[in-house]
Amino acid sequence: MTLLQNITVPNLSGERFRVRYHLTGTEDEARANAEHLRNEQTVEFPANLLPKGDLSERIAGQVEGFSPVAGGVFAVTISYAVETVGAELTQLMNVVLSNGSFMSGVRVERLDLPDSLLSVFRGPRFGIEGLRELLGVPDRQLLCTPIKPMGLSPEQLADMTYRLALGGMDLIKDDHGITNLPFCPFEERVQRCVEAVARANRETGLQCLYAANVTAPAHLVLARALFAKNAGAGALLICPATTGFDAARQLADDDRLNLPIIGHPAGGGNFVSGSEARYSHYAFFGQLHRLAGADAVIYMNYGGRFPISEQDGLDAKGGCRDPMGHLKPIFPAPGGGMTLKSIPELREVYGSEAVFVVGGGLHQHGPDLTANVREFLKLMG
Amino acid sequence: MTLLQNITVPNLSGERFRVRYHLTGTEDEARANAEHLRNEQTVEFPANLLPKGDLSERIAGQVEGFSPVAGGVFAVTISYAVETVGAELTQLMNVVLSNGSFMSGVRVERLDLPDSLLSVFRGPRFGIEGLRELLGVPDRQLLCTPIKPMGLSPEQLADMTYRLALGGMDLIKDDHGITNLPFCPFEERVQRCVEAVARANRETGLQCLYAANVTAPAHLVLARALFAKNAGAGALLICPATTGFDAARQLADDDRLNLPIIGHPAGGGNFVSGSEARYSHYAFFGQLHRLAGADAVIYMNYGGRFPISEQDGLDAKGGCRDPMGHLKPIFPAPGGGMTLKSIPELREVYGSEAVFVVGGGLHQHGPDLTANVREFLKLMG
Repeated sequence: MTLLQNITVPNLSGERFRVRYHLTGTEDEARANAEHLRNEQTVEFPANLLPKGDLSERIAGQVEGFSPVAGGVFAVTISYAVETVGAELTQLMNVVLSNGSFMSGVRVERLDLPDSLLSVFRGPRFGIEGLRELLGVPDRQLLCTPIKPMGLSPEQLADMTYRLALGGMDLIKDDHGITNLPFCPFEERVQRCVEAVARANRETGLQCLYAANVTAPAHLVLARALFAKNAGAGALLICPATTGFDAARQLADDDRLNLPIIGHPAGGGNFVSGSEARYSHYAFFGQLHRLAGADAVIYMNYGGRFPISEQDGLDAKGGCRDPMGHLKPIFPAPGGGMTLKSIPELREVYGSEAVFVVGGGLHQHGPDLTANVREFLKLMG
Repeated sequence: MTLLQNITVPNLSGERFRVRYHLTGTEDEARANAEHLRNEQTVEFPANLLPKGDLSERIAGQVEGFSPVAGGVFAVTISYAVETVGAELTQLMNVVLSNGSFMSGVRVERLDLPDSLLSVFRGPRFGIEGLRELLGVPDRQLLCTPIKPMGLSPEQLADMTYRLALGGMDLIKDDHGITNLPFCPFEERVQRCVEAVARANRETGLQCLYAANVTAPAHLVLARALFAKNAGAGALLICPATTGFDAARQLADDDRLNLPIIGHPAGGGNFVSGSEARYSHYAFFGQLHRLAGADAVIYMNYGGRFPISEQDGLDAKGGCRDPMGHLKPIFPAPGGGMTLKSIPELREVYGSEAVFVVGGGLHQHGPDLTANVREFLKLMG
């Protein structure tokens, strides 16, 4: 096509980032899908109309690796010019998997980003070490719990918060569905829960943090976070699958907030669950959340009330803690059906650098919430 | 549990909205999943600890319908108190499917929202009728095309824009992956493309609209949209699966913008593609986009380069155009592999109230883009 002859794209550095995908099908199908994907995620243009040169060889993705993994699954590495992303997380997601999400048998396993691209992202402000410092807990697993059920008033949730903090709970968060509700307005709840935690902390001498849920309309996420900060909240909770990942990044980057960010998985099953999942737990819960600046990321654990495999849990852990350039390691925070009985095994699997999120199991344990927290804490090591 | 005895939730109106899910499995599994889901999406609390009363009977979802659809699929209707949503789209998504996205065999088919809840959302500002008025095209299908491939400069994309508009193209949009790139900065591109369309419109006497892609970091979506508006862009393009749906809603609601919004499906495959898809095309492309204020929604069509069924296409159409309270009907905009040859059949299927999105097929048709547009337009009726 005449329009595209002799196109030179200025100032391409030659630096590329890599995405490892798993493609499912026969080898021929997987090879065809790899070709489709490298084009679809970039130029999205009929290959026969792309002349040789920058568009087809530098802007389009390049297949750099292709190898069988197991029956009918192939690991395919595609590289992309760092300039296709520019400096924006939304655009990184666009290049990693956008229209390709409509193809069959495509799954993002892992991102491999060079320092030049990673440097665009500030990443987690606290990470594992920083969050431990805020909590004054140097070396054991952390315990986290949501306040719920939906339907309670700010006063009732604050009462629950106080009892939990009194027992020594490390992190207390709004349940993800408790946002700004007629029977539980955000501002009143945050103020009351902040007060409840402060009162308990004075009594215990501990540094429990309350995380306010700022999953909110686009124009209110930052405003709610600033309100929470000014009210004295110690952390923020957000559901990136609902708000978009960049809303979390915006919070993490804001120096006025300077608060740890906890990612919540609500809606994340659309991305990671089932045999057709388009993201691995490694990429979604680990890498994307670190790029978005989360300091801990909650995900559904295996053996709970959701069909998640142990490998998925381990993958989430790896994505949170494996080296990733200058981006700090963050806490994997498995939850979703944890009981006192499951803790010993989970300690083995996750080691000490983990947050255990206990909800129903904590309430189920007995009528005295404060005593229950103490029971669970005995098992953290 | 003592904490939850005698809980009364104040001011519950008794109004409820309904979600129809498809649950896959045996009848016993589907019934168990329905119970799990109504709890998980609201109170998220052990059922044995919820005393009778407001929490278990009004705040928790209630299963109102259960019937077999086809082998191993059951249609389950769950109602939720409108107060569990409050007035926020993010929270509506939270209640419709949040942690439930991690369950097996759950799919959101359709939302049924009472006027009291719909009234919280302004919805599409233009809809089908308003967009037709802006374009001055009262009664045929509309034609839309992206400018691409990624790698072109603003000047080159503007040149392409001019040629397309000269042929009579109705809507010209940035490709979804062309956002703010080192070799194609947003502001320069928007200015040049706006000028190109204006020049062509002066020559043709038509009212082609250029839609600027404002898929961007959370703190920049609105700023880019305002820049585009001030530069003279006629519409905005956004990828809700990447930015979050509420970012689109924010744009649609802003009176300073007063521009039609086009939803792009990039990343939407995570929600709607494959046998395990968690949203129907009806709910995702139709209903969620209307709640988010889109005036047209692009989706992958059947028979193109993605594995989409004809039924999915029809479902998207229905979700866009079926009555939905005060929310205007919007244009379904099938794309993703459309050619001149596929148009006659698609005209039959979609009728006149549709936008046909042609990309590669238009370029493939011959070297003269302006002539190609005229060929395609002859088939709109």
